[in-house]
Amino acid sequence: MSVDLAERRARAALCRVVEPETRAVVELVQCHGAVEAWERLSTGRVALPARLAGLTARAAECRPDDDLERLERLGGRLVCPGDEEWPQQLDDLWLADSCPPFALWVRGPASLAQRCERSVAVVGSRAATDYGTYVAAELGAGLGTRGWSTISGGAYGIDGAAHRGALAVGAATVVVLASGVDVAYPRGHHGLFERVAEEHLLVSESALGCAPHRARFLVRNRLIAALTRGTVVVEAAVRSGALSTAGRAAALQRPLMAVPGPVTSTLSTGCHAWIRDRGAVLVCDAEQVLEQVGAVGEHLAPEQRGPTRPGDELSDEVRRVLEAVPVRRAAGPARIAVTAGADAAATLSALRTLQRAGYVVAVTDGWRLGPKARPGAGPADDKPAADAPQQVLDLEV
Amino acid sequence: MSVDLAERRARAALCRVVEPETRAVVELVQCHGAVEAWERLSTGRVALPARLAGLTARAAECRPDDDLERLERLGGRLVCPGDEEWPQQLDDLWLADSCPPFALWVRGPASLAQRCERSVAVVGSRAATDYGTYVAAELGAGLGTRGWSTISGGAYGIDGAAHRGALAVGAATVVVLASGVDVAYPRGHHGLFERVAEEHLLVSESALGCAPHRARFLVRNRLIAALTRGTVVVEAAVRSGALSTAGRAAALQRPLMAVPGPVTSTLSTGCHAWIRDRGAVLVCDAEQVLEQVGAVGEHLAPEQRGPTRPGDELSDEVRRVLEAVPVRRAAGPARIAVTAGADAAATLSALRTLQRAGYVVAVTDGWRLGPKARPGAGPADDKPAADAPQQVLDLEV
Repeated sequence: MSVDLAERRARAALCRVVEPETRAVVELVQCHGAVEAWERLSTGRVALPARLAGLTARAAECRPDDDLERLERLGGRLVCPGDEEWPQQLDDLWLADSCPPFALWVRGPASLAQRCERSVAVVGSRAATDYGTYVAAELGAGLGTRGWSTISGGAYGIDGAAHRGALAVGAATVVVLASGVDVAYPRGHHGLFERVAEEHLLVSESALGCAPHRARFLVRNRLIAALTRGTVVVEAAVRSGALSTAGRAAALQRPLMAVPGPVTSTLSTGCHAWIRDRGAVLVCDAEQVLEQVGAVGEHLAPEQRGPTRPGDELSDEVRRVLEAVPVRRAAGPARIAVTAGADAAATLSALRTLQRAGYVVAVTDGWRLGPKARPGAGPADDKPAADAPQQVLDLEV
Repeated sequence: MSVDLAERRARAALCRVVEPETRAVVELVQCHGAVEAWERLSTGRVALPARLAGLTARAAECRPDDDLERLERLGGRLVCPGDEEWPQQLDDLWLADSCPPFALWVRGPASLAQRCERSVAVVGSRAATDYGTYVAAELGAGLGTRGWSTISGGAYGIDGAAHRGALAVGAATVVVLASGVDVAYPRGHHGLFERVAEEHLLVSESALGCAPHRARFLVRNRLIAALTRGTVVVEAAVRSGALSTAGRAAALQRPLMAVPGPVTSTLSTGCHAWIRDRGAVLVCDAEQVLEQVGAVGEHLAPEQRGPTRPGDELSDEVRRVLEAVPVRRAAGPARIAVTAGADAAATLSALRTLQRAGYVVAVTDGWRLGPKARPGAGPADDKPAADAPQQVLDLEV
């Protein structure tokens, strides 16, 4: 593994002390790296918003070495950005007004990156009907027999049925928890989670022992959406938590699907509303799901993942700023703003977005293009970007 | 009524002798009018394709006066183009590679044009499930309480449930039969049809006594689609006759809707396929249906029917020919072909299409613009065409 112990300790500590999606700390880590960010946070050498004032006190009580030791005793490991097992697709969260976790607490024998490579999220209501749990189990099994993993949140109802459907055919499944990976919630799924931890993967961004609460469920849903190639909602009332996962998938521009049901069932109203009004594709079975995530009758089509040309997924404004960054040398933000025809604040915000996504890097004398910002691969090039060499071509602007 | 007896007799006879959508006879009527067309057909003074050779012999046996007398004794009437009761929207069939019926045989106290003005087709499988018949009845009732008619084909299953749902709330319903309006098919719906004939409307383009057969069901479906503002499929297997009505509605560019159901029910597979692959809008109740046909919470919006500018619904090729027809004077087809940049055959075919739709009229010395081909109403005019005066503006080209 390429991540050193100091980095891993820092990230374990950040998971323990900082709630996911806490923007101020996320930016601190972006700017200074996890080790320096943790150092500043735990020693109070950082200006934080008032509502985060308690963080330093909490940091003082944090014992990351103990946490990592406990995790190891459980047979688990902390997966960090830079590890081979780290799912690169989590970086897409930067482009969806969110952020990847500091690290992932993982139990189970499989490789997380591998298990997520060909995976679909199957989510839905806890209070599912027999119809919904039947369909969810069929989906888990159908995806499994076609070589795909089913990823869900381990809740009662649809989630549990989807996991069990995959297990029933000996297929891969990943449970992404809103609590620590040593906390069985719901308690009735203790046996299910233990089996998944033994044969597959149990994952969380929360430290060991953390209890699930509402905010953690919502941020957890972004991981389910970001780890997978697409999200299927099986049953959901109009105001269902499952729809927050659907919203995250939509923000990530991942395929969003919903299973219809009887119009007389309130547990299908959310699915019908998303199909009718929000662009979810109606799917009836695993085959139709795989059609949407681009995997019908053949090996995984890599061009489904990345944009054909760098920057295709960026907003017009952000792309204009990207185009204003010189290729060979660095430029200051003021100069970039002038070239882009944008004001200073918007330019800085766009540069930050681009940095997170790997398009630009901050250097001593300003900003320059990052590894992801390879200039276009020529007009007649139909090769998917994923196949193209990952180097920076040093072309003149 | 503006239609004289000779015309009505001729159209009754055409209904008796000629199957609907028989293009050669339809064109004969277009060119010479119903009276002359019938005269030629019954005396054999017409060149018909070989497969229509038997028509003249059949025509000789036809007794249109007897038919009209029997219809009158049944309390019915023959509704012809030009009658006040004739539904103008049937003309849209010309634009969908089809044609209106020669006439409609009608039983019932209501005005056909009025009853179809605010109407929706509710169709589906004969072998419907309890779920499907429940939803169809709810739709008929829901449309009815909102002042809309439910139009269907009177079959067992979805059709019958939709009619009965409307009747149950005292709302209008129209049964469009594939047999004569004196033939109860299916026999078990005899009571339903009698009630509809007494209180509402029983309609067919087939003459009295005609038995239903497969071809008649299919052409009948075009009437259901064309009479209504939109079509809802409630339950349909993948190869269901109800989907032929859906196809007709799509060809007419009328809103097409489908009700979802359990993915475990083969009777919903057709609905799901149309939602997923063919642009049908998923609807769950009457309110959502009325949203699609443009009637939510307010009086009927007339701009939903007609195009904003004349010719908007025509193909590019046909429109090019329309634009080549001079405004003030007539022109021969050769001259129009040159102006349009099209060959002679394509130009003639386009002119025929335009004639059927009222855009051009054939005159002694060629073709000129018809009543529907008003020059554009000016660039900033947002008024719907339906409100605009129907006169021909004599502008210079």
